[in-house]
Amino acid sequence: MKVYSLKKVQERELVPGGKVKFVHSDAMTLAFWTFKAGSPLPEHAHPHEQILTVMEGSVEFTIDGETESIEAPASIIIPPNAVHSGTCRTDCLLIDAFNPRREDFAALDA
Amino acid sequence: MKVYSLKKVQERELVPGGKVKFVHSDAMTLAFWTFKAGSPLPEHAHPHEQILTVMEGSVEFTIDGETESIEAPASIIIPPNAVHSGTCRTDCLLIDAFNPRREDFAALDA
Repeated sequence: MKVYSLKKVQERELVPGGKVKFVHSDAMTLAFWTFKAGSPLPEHAHPHEQILTVMEGSVEFTIDGETESIEAPASIIIPPNAVHSGTCRTDCLLIDAFNPRREDFAALDA
Repeated sequence: MKVYSLKKVQERELVPGGKVKFVHSDAMTLAFWTFKAGSPLPEHAHPHEQILTVMEGSVEFTIDGETESIEAPASIIIPPNAVHSGTCRTDCLLIDAFNPRREDFAALDA
């Protein structure tokens, strides 16, 4: 049985103020993020479909030029190749789900 | 922007002691579960790959005849068509991620 004990998974500060732990299956990646208030989620895009769930906190989020204020608990659907960015208005706990899996992030753990 | 405010998503008691809210993208389904201590996760299988994350609580979980005790926070990889079941030893908060999306669950919300 493949189990990721999240206390033992390596945490990385991949963006300033944002620390993440990854879980990978064959088809998906989950990313468990903690962000400090004021941390930016830099603008980017990727071919993976993404569901971003705000478990705790408040995020101002932009997809393809449309901006909304999102309060936990909420999930945001990010289509493939959509340009997205944001700012954490408070300390935040976020969980991303990606399909297909993020080979770029999996390579960090290899 | 497609946002699911989870306080507004319909909650369903799909198994005794287990209540769930669903979020669907084109390729994935997320299921946000609360279970009461002692609730069974009945044995079943499906062609979807699944990552089950135990956010809070303790679960005894079986995949294809192999049983482990899982303490939060932890993620369990469930391969397509694997037979899986479990029991919540405490009150639990679980999040499932599925690929492809669960059309059977999406039909409940249609």
